[in-house]
Amino acid sequence: MSAFVRNAWYMAAWSQEVPNDGFLPRTLLGEPWLILKASDGAHVMMADRCPHRFVPLSRGRRVGDAVACGYHGLTFGTDGACVFNPFGREVPPEARVRTLPLIERHGGLWFWPGDAEKADPATIPDFAFIDDEHDARDWLVMDVGYELISDNLLDLSHAEFLHVETFGVNGSLFECGKQTVETDETGAIWNKWDMDSSRAPAWTVPMLGEGARVDQWLHIRWHAPASLALFIGLAHEGTGRTQPVVPPMANPHILTPKNETETHYFFTRGHGAEAEAMARKVFLEEDEPMIRAQQAAMAGQDFWALRPVILPSDAAAIRARRKLMQMRREEAAPDAA
Amino acid sequence: MSAFVRNAWYMAAWSQEVPNDGFLPRTLLGEPWLILKASDGAHVMMADRCPHRFVPLSRGRRVGDAVACGYHGLTFGTDGACVFNPFGREVPPEARVRTLPLIERHGGLWFWPGDAEKADPATIPDFAFIDDEHDARDWLVMDVGYELISDNLLDLSHAEFLHVETFGVNGSLFECGKQTVETDETGAIWNKWDMDSSRAPAWTVPMLGEGARVDQWLHIRWHAPASLALFIGLAHEGTGRTQPVVPPMANPHILTPKNETETHYFFTRGHGAEAEAMARKVFLEEDEPMIRAQQAAMAGQDFWALRPVILPSDAAAIRARRKLMQMRREEAAPDAA
Amino acid sequence: MSAFVRNAWYMAAWSQEVPNDGFLPRTLLGEPWLILKASDGAHVMMADRCPHRFVPLSRGRRVGDAVACGYHGLTFGTDGACVFNPFGREVPPEARVRTLPLIERHGGLWFWPGDAEKADPATIPDFAFIDDEHDARDWLVMDVGYELISDNLLDLSHAEFLHVETFGVNGSLFECGKQTVETDETGAIWNKWDMDSSRAPAWTVPMLGEGARVDQWLHIRWHAPASLALFIGLAHEGTGRTQPVVPPMANPHILTPKNETETHYFFTRGHGAEAEAMARKVFLEEDEPMIRAQQAAMAGQDFWALRPVILPSDAAAIRARRKLMQMRREEAAPDAA
Repeated sequence: MSAFVRNAWYMAAWSQEVPNDGFLPRTLLGEPWLILKASDGAHVMMADRCPHRFVPLSRGRRVGDAVACGYHGLTFGTDGACVFNPFGREVPPEARVRTLPLIERHGGLWFWPGDAEKADPATIPDFAFIDDEHDARDWLVMDVGYELISDNLLDLSHAEFLHVETFGVNGSLFECGKQTVETDETGAIWNKWDMDSSRAPAWTVPMLGEGARVDQWLHIRWHAPASLALFIGLAHEGTGRTQPVVPPMANPHILTPKNETETHYFFTRGHGAEAEAMARKVFLEEDEPMIRAQQAAMAGQDFWALRPVILPSDAAAIRARRKLMQMRREEAAPDAA
Repeated sequence: MSAFVRNAWYMAAWSQEVPNDGFLPRTLLGEPWLILKASDGAHVMMADRCPHRFVPLSRGRRVGDAVACGYHGLTFGTDGACVFNPFGREVPPEARVRTLPLIERHGGLWFWPGDAEKADPATIPDFAFIDDEHDARDWLVMDVGYELISDNLLDLSHAEFLHVETFGVNGSLFECGKQTVETDETGAIWNKWDMDSSRAPAWTVPMLGEGARVDQWLHIRWHAPASLALFIGLAHEGTGRTQPVVPPMANPHILTPKNETETHYFFTRGHGAEAEAMARKVFLEEDEPMIRAQQAAMAGQDFWALRPVILPSDAAAIRARRKLMQMRREEAAPDAA
Repeated sequence: MSAFVRNAWYMAAWSQEVPNDGFLPRTLLGEPWLILKASDGAHVMMADRCPHRFVPLSRGRRVGDAVACGYHGLTFGTDGACVFNPFGREVPPEARVRTLPLIERHGGLWFWPGDAEKADPATIPDFAFIDDEHDARDWLVMDVGYELISDNLLDLSHAEFLHVETFGVNGSLFECGKQTVETDETGAIWNKWDMDSSRAPAWTVPMLGEGARVDQWLHIRWHAPASLALFIGLAHEGTGRTQPVVPPMANPHILTPKNETETHYFFTRGHGAEAEAMARKVFLEEDEPMIRAQQAAMAGQDFWALRPVILPSDAAAIRARRKLMQMRREEAAPDAA
């Protein structure tokens, strides 16, 4: 069974990462790819591996919209076919690199590594809430597998322990948190923590006064394989959430496997160096070391084989893991599905 | 067959290494453990791995005598049972970490990783000679497996070649060394080198004069799996060892596998920076590089499969290797034993 | 099937690398060896591994023409037999290290790792063209397997892309290059690129004037397993190569596997720091990174299993790979051959 679901949309990059000339090389799902922006503005994703001697095409150079290998000069067009061989009159028909469907949506480039006939752009998860570019689009690589990061995000109760310095929610999550796990009509799994009449966070005291209580919520949405969205709100108590103390926030946490143990993490954050540093602190100094310790402790063994203790707060993460398992099983044996 | 004997006492740490608050995390026999000193003074050894998501509990914190996981807050008492789950009314009974018997003896903490019913503190090897704390208790990690270090210690003839700069015994070992290999009533294996009427070492000349001869001995004792004691003496010639030139010395060389290729090495040495540096020079600049080269050359293959040439000086090391092999075989198939 | 052909001559070192005292330790074909120059001037190659405890003998020292192990003092003569055991009257007859035939020829030391009876010095490849020591003898280790370097050298068309900064041949190779692949009477495979009436390289313009044309050639010779020689010439056009513009050049590119993924590379170059730096730039900043990327992309898989696209320019490299494959197959099943 493959380590990755293949019939699904994954985000390869923010559009802004792809240069007008040259190309962006990136390892995705364990394979090397190259993304370029053709002269007509279309984005192209092709295997970053020459079929002649296997070297990365990204060690070569752009020749118009084509890519010339830096080793012996074979040159490939945007459809993946070899268009030039400097040392032979004929080009072998098998001299061709694989290309993948690549769609620009919500500032990101989405690819479908599986059966191209099944690739329906309508099923790209909805991240329209970032179209306004209110926040800066950012990305990093985490040295851990994507499923462990999904688990982390789908159980936000960890914020009370792991992020206590940065945005610990003050104990309100376990004082009065009510958890709801749902699957919506798009197939997305939600984990909703609602904290009605909870103690207001310290940073709101200047606004609300000592002893104020608020209605808070932390909702997270997961689309397979690992594209998540986080929705956070804080409203005056008992107003049915109609009177927010601060505007509600929505953030993408889009995870694309680099390989089985590393993950591209696409997110948004406030503009400026301070917000950039804060985001990196949370992701790289709080989350990542813990998840990396987890991955090291698991030592390559299967999650279920390790017989984890299951808590009520794990409900959403478990539901997501089961769905991924089912998708991979169906892809491994399509007739049995 | 397991890489390690399990029904045996191993030293986990010097007592002095364990802080009064917090805990000492340590990898022992390939597994992560955590040692803490409870408020009643008792030492506790528990698995350093949360049964919920497998992260090291040592990334969390002490809450009284209990340990709270730093990821989602599950809290474990000194008996290993989960005593608190912040996000659930009930605690699943399987939420429990393993604990091991841990006995304080001769300044060290001794654990028994096997069948707890067989753990008899009376069989902890006798290191009473260090109870007076005349020497400083020290430790380090060697990047080599414990059996190769045992071999090294059980054949001290290597001192004539490897330690020639630090305490080469002047050639007297092969000039007049007489070797005796014995097993005593505690099951310990001894390798005794006795050098009667041998040339006195250079450093005794100011005391004894040029050309003096002495009776010297180098005796080493091995208890399975790898707790060794070294006894060194130097007496005026022909006095039946009743008139020592300097007081006899006894030193522990207690080896506990960190994993199959690294070893915790517990020893004593003189007090002060100079003695500390000298010990590290001998262990880390003389012994370890040679044994690491040996381990690299063996490339993970079994010692016997490599068909080593066996010399008379190997007798004790071979006897110890055979005993370990037998113990592991018995543990692998207890009924056949 | 072994990774290496064994019944063949390989170059171990330049003679000048072996000190008069001491020895040269070197890993060759995945095994540790030690080369020494005996007092009678003969070169000796013996396994760098004590048969007692497997440590490298090169951690010990020379005792006359013999080598004493630095761990317990076993001492081995130039025929590999143990001549001294400090701690035993008798020497076990199995205390012996392997030695290999080693022949000095053309400034290099050539060994035969296979069946010694088949080792015929007459079949050492002819590198007499370096006997005059006109060029400096140099060497380095490349972090890639020898077959990939052979491929690289047997298809010099890569110079037009990879070495464009250092000695790109100005496009003449694909403008008018004519390729001939031959096997000669010694069994060597040749790849000859002849460029008659080609544009003269830029550096000849001061000599020949603008717009001059020349006859150029790039011939490379390969002897199994991986000893190559490169012959380069540049003559006035249409003189049947009888009137060279500059003296023809001949250079050894002798490759000996350090192991499956690293290679000793023996070559010659002009004298002086500038020529040394230039050679290293070509080998280590142009060739090696590309070949290392290739090796990484192949990820340990077999070259043929990856189904490479084959171009006409690959003809010599493919012929050499087939010959190696056949030699290894014959060694694996000698009776079937």
